[in-house]
Amino acid sequence: MGRITARKRVVRVRVDADRDEEATSARADVLAVEEPLEIRIGGEPLTVTMRTPGHDVELAAGYLVAEGVITREGQFASAIHCGGPGAPGRIIETGRLSLTPTSVEGNTYNVLDVTLAPGTPLPETLTSRRTYTSSACGVCGAASIDQVARTSAFDVSADPVPVDAVRVAGFPEQLRAHQDVFDKTGGLHAAGLFDAVTGEMLVVREDVGRHNAVDKVIGWAALAGRLPLTGTVLQVSGRASFELVQKAAMAGIPILAAVSAPSSLAVELAETSGLTLIGFVRGSTMNVYARPDRVRVGVAAPV
Amino acid sequence: MGRITARKRVVRVRVDADRDEEATSARADVLAVEEPLEIRIGGEPLTVTMRTPGHDVELAAGYLVAEGVITREGQFASAIHCGGPGAPGRIIETGRLSLTPTSVEGNTYNVLDVTLAPGTPLPETLTSRRTYTSSACGVCGAASIDQVARTSAFDVSADPVPVDAVRVAGFPEQLRAHQDVFDKTGGLHAAGLFDAVTGEMLVVREDVGRHNAVDKVIGWAALAGRLPLTGTVLQVSGRASFELVQKAAMAGIPILAAVSAPSSLAVELAETSGLTLIGFVRGSTMNVYARPDRVRVGVAAPV
Repeated sequence: MGRITARKRVVRVRVDADRDEEATSARADVLAVEEPLEIRIGGEPLTVTMRTPGHDVELAAGYLVAEGVITREGQFASAIHCGGPGAPGRIIETGRLSLTPTSVEGNTYNVLDVTLAPGTPLPETLTSRRTYTSSACGVCGAASIDQVARTSAFDVSADPVPVDAVRVAGFPEQLRAHQDVFDKTGGLHAAGLFDAVTGEMLVVREDVGRHNAVDKVIGWAALAGRLPLTGTVLQVSGRASFELVQKAAMAGIPILAAVSAPSSLAVELAETSGLTLIGFVRGSTMNVYARPDRVRVGVAAPV
Repeated sequence: MGRITARKRVVRVRVDADRDEEATSARADVLAVEEPLEIRIGGEPLTVTMRTPGHDVELAAGYLVAEGVITREGQFASAIHCGGPGAPGRIIETGRLSLTPTSVEGNTYNVLDVTLAPGTPLPETLTSRRTYTSSACGVCGAASIDQVARTSAFDVSADPVPVDAVRVAGFPEQLRAHQDVFDKTGGLHAAGLFDAVTGEMLVVREDVGRHNAVDKVIGWAALAGRLPLTGTVLQVSGRASFELVQKAAMAGIPILAAVSAPSSLAVELAETSGLTLIGFVRGSTMNVYARPDRVRVGVAAPV
C-alpha cells in the first residue's frame, strides 16, 4: 500500500484571534498519492490520467468501457505495466483469476499498455487524438461537443429493477465504512457497486479522481464478465456530473446515487438515457431527479 | 443568471427504518448548470471543458495562462461567442472595461473563439492535439507524462510575501460568504484570490469544475494585466491537486490554500516550485505542506 498513501512532515498551525494561543508544531501527515498513468493501446499513447495507483488494469478497462470500446468479456486481452525507458515490462493477465487487488496494487509504474482481443475495433476518435486526463477527468479526449453524448451499447431505460429507498439510504454509510484510504488522508473519492435487490456490496474503489473511482468499479465488472450491469446501483461519494451519468449508462447501470448534488446536464442525460438519478442521499432523505419509478418507498427495512 | 442555475422538479423521499413515516413528495430543486464550452484559437478547436456558463472569456484566458500561452497583458486580443451553425457571433472585447460580469454572463453559447495578439506564439502541443476537458480537468491536453510538469514564466519561489496565519484562517469563510450559487445548489466549487498583506478579497468565481473556478480567477487577473500574481493567496473550496498547484505556479501565485487535503503530487510540485501549500484550513487550524516560512504566526488579528 506504499504507493496509495505517502507520509509527509507538515507544520500544523493553530491560530487564535486573541493571539493567546497561536502555535505551530511539526507532525506527520498521510497524503493520498496522485500520480499520472499513461494508458496505451498496442503501444500507442491513448490518454494520461492523474490517479491514485492501484487497480490500474481495472481503471484502463473501465475507461475503455466508457469510451465504448469494450462492451463484453474477452475484448480486453492483457496489459503490461512498463517501468520506464529500458525497464522490463510486467505482464498482467486479466482473466478472472487476476482480479485480486494484489495483482495490480503495489506497482511502481506509470505506463500501462493494453492489448485488445483481435477484432475489437477502435473508434476512429481513439486513433486520431492524444489526450490528457486530469484527476477528475473522465470524458477527456472527444474533440467536439457533438461527441460528448455517446451512445451506449446497453439500454438502461428498459431495466425493470426496483430499489428500496431504505436500502439506498444505507449505501453511503456502507461506502464510507470501506474507504480505508479516505480515513487516513481525507483526500479520496469513492465509488461502490451494489446489487439493487439484495443490497449486497459488490465492489468499492477509491481514487483522487472520482471518475477514476468509477472507472475502476466498472473495469472490475468488465474484467469479470459482468457487463451490462443490469440490476445494480452505483453509489458515489460526491456530486453527480454529466460524465458520471455517461459512464454508468455506458456500463448498463440503471441507477446512480450520489451523496451530493447533480448538475443540470447530469439530470438531462439521465432523463434521456432512462437512468434513475438520485442525489443528496443523506441520512433518511434523498432527491430523485430522473426515473423515480424505480425507487420503492414503504418497504420494510432489510434485516 | 438563468444559465447558471436551473430549476427542476424532483421527488423527495424520506425513509424510516420502521416504515412508519416513509413518504415522497414532489418539490422544486435548483441545479448548478453544467454545459460544454469549446474553446477555439483563431477558429481551430483547442479544448472542450464542462463548465458552469458565465465568465467564459476569463475561463479561456485562465486556461491559456495555465498552458503557458499567455504571460502578460495584451496577448489575449478578443473573443467571439458563437451561437451555432449559421448564428451570428457576439464579439466580446477583453480590455479592462469589459471585465464586468454582465459582459460575459447570461450568454447562451457554447463555443468561444479566441484571437491572440500578433506575435503570441502557440506552443507546438496546442496545434498538434485535440482535447476534451471534463468538469474537473485542467491539465488535459498534454500527450505525455513528460509534459505534465510545465515550466512557469514566473518564479514564485522568490516571492518574499508573508501571510498571517490568522488571515488565512478567515479566507474559507469569506469565500463561502460569496458563493451565491453554492447556497442555492450545493453543487459548485469556488476559488478566491486574496491580497496576502491586506487580506482584501480580489475576486471569487464558482464552477462545477474546481479547475474552471481557478481558471476564471486567473483569467480575470490576466485580462486585468495583473500577472504575475505576486503577493496573493489563492483559496480553493475543496482539495488541492497537482493541477491546481500547477495553475497557481503558472500565474505566479506564491501561496495556495485549500479547505481539504492536498495530494502527494501537489505537495511535490509545491516544494519544487517554491510555492507555499496550505491544506485543511478549517476553523482555527491548518496544515502547511510546503514553504511554511511564508506563514506568520503570533500576529495580531486584523481589525
